[in-house]
Amino acid sequence: MLRLRTSDADFERRFARLVDDRRESDGDVARAVTDILHDVRARGDAALADYTQRLDRHTLASDTDWRIPAEDCRAAFEALDPTLREALELAADRITAYHRDQLPAERDFTDDAGVRLGARWSAVDAAGLYVPGGRAAYPSSLLMNAIPAKVAGVERLVVVTPTPNGQSNPLVLAAAHLAGVDEVWRVGGAQAIGALAYGTARIAPVDAVVGPGNAYVAEAKRQLYGVVGIDMVAGPSEILVIADGRNDPDWIAADLLSQAEHDPAAQSILITDDAAFADLVADAVDVQCAQLTTHRTARESWDAHGVIILVSDLAAESPVLANRLAAEHVELAVDDPEALFALLRHAGSVFLGRHTPEAVGDYVAGPNHVLPTGRRARFASGLSVLDFMKRTSFISLDAAALGRIGPAAIALAHAEGLPAHARSVELRLP
Amino acid sequence: MLRLRTSDADFERRFARLVDDRRESDGDVARAVTDILHDVRARGDAALADYTQRLDRHTLASDTDWRIPAEDCRAAFEALDPTLREALELAADRITAYHRDQLPAERDFTDDAGVRLGARWSAVDAAGLYVPGGRAAYPSSLLMNAIPAKVAGVERLVVVTPTPNGQSNPLVLAAAHLAGVDEVWRVGGAQAIGALAYGTARIAPVDAVVGPGNAYVAEAKRQLYGVVGIDMVAGPSEILVIADGRNDPDWIAADLLSQAEHDPAAQSILITDDAAFADLVADAVDVQCAQLTTHRTARESWDAHGVIILVSDLAAESPVLANRLAAEHVELAVDDPEALFALLRHAGSVFLGRHTPEAVGDYVAGPNHVLPTGRRARFASGLSVLDFMKRTSFISLDAAALGRIGPAAIALAHAEGLPAHARSVELRLP
Repeated sequence: MLRLRTSDADFERRFARLVDDRRESDGDVARAVTDILHDVRARGDAALADYTQRLDRHTLASDTDWRIPAEDCRAAFEALDPTLREALELAADRITAYHRDQLPAERDFTDDAGVRLGARWSAVDAAGLYVPGGRAAYPSSLLMNAIPAKVAGVERLVVVTPTPNGQSNPLVLAAAHLAGVDEVWRVGGAQAIGALAYGTARIAPVDAVVGPGNAYVAEAKRQLYGVVGIDMVAGPSEILVIADGRNDPDWIAADLLSQAEHDPAAQSILITDDAAFADLVADAVDVQCAQLTTHRTARESWDAHGVIILVSDLAAESPVLANRLAAEHVELAVDDPEALFALLRHAGSVFLGRHTPEAVGDYVAGPNHVLPTGRRARFASGLSVLDFMKRTSFISLDAAALGRIGPAAIALAHAEGLPAHARSVELRLP
Repeated sequence: MLRLRTSDADFERRFARLVDDRRESDGDVARAVTDILHDVRARGDAALADYTQRLDRHTLASDTDWRIPAEDCRAAFEALDPTLREALELAADRITAYHRDQLPAERDFTDDAGVRLGARWSAVDAAGLYVPGGRAAYPSSLLMNAIPAKVAGVERLVVVTPTPNGQSNPLVLAAAHLAGVDEVWRVGGAQAIGALAYGTARIAPVDAVVGPGNAYVAEAKRQLYGVVGIDMVAGPSEILVIADGRNDPDWIAADLLSQAEHDPAAQSILITDDAAFADLVADAVDVQCAQLTTHRTARESWDAHGVIILVSDLAAESPVLANRLAAEHVELAVDDPEALFALLRHAGSVFLGRHTPEAVGDYVAGPNHVLPTGRRARFASGLSVLDFMKRTSFISLDAAALGRIGPAAIALAHAEGLPAHARSVELRLP
C-alpha cells in the first residue's frame, strides 16, 4: 500500500505516476488474439472446438456439448434457495426499472423552414454477452449486461461462457433464465468473441458484444470494434473513497476491501484529511483482510495497488485529485456529499453519503455496475440501453422547403468542388 | 457497375457478396500505424516534426509552423464571398439547432424503497478533431464535427490538419472560426491522432478524437480506442436509393453521382422495380458523369462499386435488401416514403420523398452528416452531442433505505463468494 501526502514535495510526481498507471495488458496478448480471431474466421466451429479442447478441456461434439438448453437454465433457477431467488428477483426488478427510464425519446418535428427532421431509435437485432467462467462468473454481471439489452428490445440475446472441464455455474444459468437469455453457448475466450462477431455454422453472428472477461476477451473486443459494436474496453476494477475522519474506520476498510477482493489488479484508493483516521483504516484493512475467504486476492491487490492519500483540505483538494483519477467508483463518505459531487467532473458512478457502500451498486441499487475503468470516465459512460440501440436520423423536404435551404447547399457544394452534389439539388429547384 | 435482379437464380449468392464487401484497409496499414503511434508516444514533438517533414513536406520549427493563429481563421472567414459566408452561417445555425435538441436530460429521483438514484451528464474536457488535407478538406465536415462538441459544452476543441507544402485550406479555417475552434495544429496522419491521444510537449492531450481521415487516420483511431473516446470507425461513403419508375432519371442519377464523386471507393446502389427506368438512370449517369469536374473519381467509383438491383415488388423486397445493406444514406424516392421507412431497421440517415436529395443532408438540413458506413448502421449511430459527453450515475441511501435493499445485496455477495462486499453492507445495517 502506497501512502502519499499532498503536502510532500514529490507528491505531484508520484500522483502523476499513479494516474498514468493503467495495470493493463500488453502486445503479446494482442498478437495471440489476432491469430485466434483469424483462425475462428477461417475455420469456424472447428477452430472453436480446438481452442475449447485445449483451453477449457471440454469436448464440443454433440449439440448439448455446444449449448446449454433453456430447460437447464430454468431448472437452475427453480433449484435456487428461496432467499437467493428473491434477492436475484429484487435485483432484476430494480435494474429493469432503472434502465427502462433510459429509453430515448423519438424526435419528429418540422422547423420554420418547413423542413421535417427527426431521429428514430431501434434496437440491434442480436447481442452477444460474454460471461467468464470460474471465479469471475457472477450472476449479478449477467443481469447487468442482459437486462439493458432486453429493455432496449433486442430480439436475440446470446450468452457465450467457457465451461472448464464441462462445469457450468448454476447461479449464472439461473440468472440467464431470469433475464430471458435466448441461447447459451459453451465457448469462451477470444475465440468466443470471434464467433459472435463473424458467426460460425452453429452460432449466428450478432451485432453488439458486451460483457466482462480476461485480457484476451477484452483485447478481442477491442480488435473487433467496428465489425460489431462493443460496450467498452474494460480494465481492472477500482474504487476511490473520499472520507472525512468522522466515519467508522471498519466501514471504510470494508469498502476498500470489497474492491480489492475482485482481482489482484484491482485498485482501492482512500483520500482523507485525517491522518489518525487513515491509520485506523489501514489497521482495519489488515484485520478484516485476514478474515476473508478472499484474503489472498484482497491482500495482493491492497499491497500492490492500494493507496492512501492524505490531504490538508478535503473540500478543496479531493475533487481535483478525483477528477484526475476519473475512477470507476467514487464514494463520498462525508456530511455534505452534494457539495463534493457538484465538483466531480469525471467518475463512472458516485455513491453519496455514509450509508451508501459501493456494493449496493454492484447488486441491487438499479444503475448499471458495468462502468468505465482506467480513467475512461473522462470520456465513457456505464453500460445502458443505448449500447444496444442505434439512432437513424431522417430528413424530409418538399419543393418549397428545398427552395428555402437548397441554394445554400449548392453554394457549399460548389465551394467544396463537388458538382454532382450541387446538381442533385439544382435539378429539383423550380 | 453491377446489375442484379432478385429474380435471377444466383441473386442471393451475388447479393451476399455485395453485403460482405467492406472496401476497407488491410493489415499493412495496421502495422505501419502501430509503429507511428509508438514513435509519437516515445518521441513526441520530434516524431511529429519528422513525419510532417517526410509526408507533408512541411517543416515544423517556429510557433507559426506548428499552429495556425486564431487571427488567420478569422481573417479567412471575413474574406469569404458573402454568398458563401451566408451559406456557411445558415448551415452552422441549422446544425446547432438540431444538435441542441440532443442534449440529454439529467435524472434524479427517489424510488419507493427510499433509494435516491440518478444520472448526470457532463462534457469531456477536451476534444480533438481531425480535418484531412487536400481534396477531402471540407468546411461542412468541420462544422458537423465541431458544432456538436461545442453544443455539448467541450471547453477545449482542437483541430489537427495536415498542411502539405505548408498550404492550408482557407474555407476550412473560416469554418473553424465560425465553429469556435480553440486550437489549429498543422499536423496530420496517424501521427496527429497519436499526439491528440498521448499528448506532446506542445499539444496537450484530449479525451475524445473525432473526424474523417484516410485509412491511416481511421486505423490510428481504432488502435487508440480506449485510450481516448472516438466517434466511430469510418469507411468509404455509400448511398442506397430506392426509387420507383415515376422519378426523373436525371435526379436519381445526380444522387448516385453525388456519392460516387467523393471517393473511388464510395458506393452508390439503386434499387428499383422498373427495368426501363433503371436503363434511363444508367444512361443519365453516363451523360452527367462526363460533365463533372469530378468525373474521374465518380467514374471509377460507379464502374467498380455502382450497383443497380431490379426487384419485382418494391414495397416487399426493398426494405429487406436495405436492412441487409444497412447503408449510411438511404433515399426513399417513392410516393409513400413513410410506408417504406416504417420497415427500415438499419440505416444511418434516411431521406424521405422525391424532393430530399442526400446532398441537403451533407450541408444544411441540420442532422449530422457523420454517419456509420460499411453496415455499421446495424449497431452504430451518426455523430451527436453524446459523443462528447459521458454519464455519471449516482446512488444515495440512508440507513432506512439500506435496511430495505441491503439484505438482498448481502445474499448475492455471499453467493458470489465476495465476503468483503457483504461485510461493507452488513456493518452499516442497524
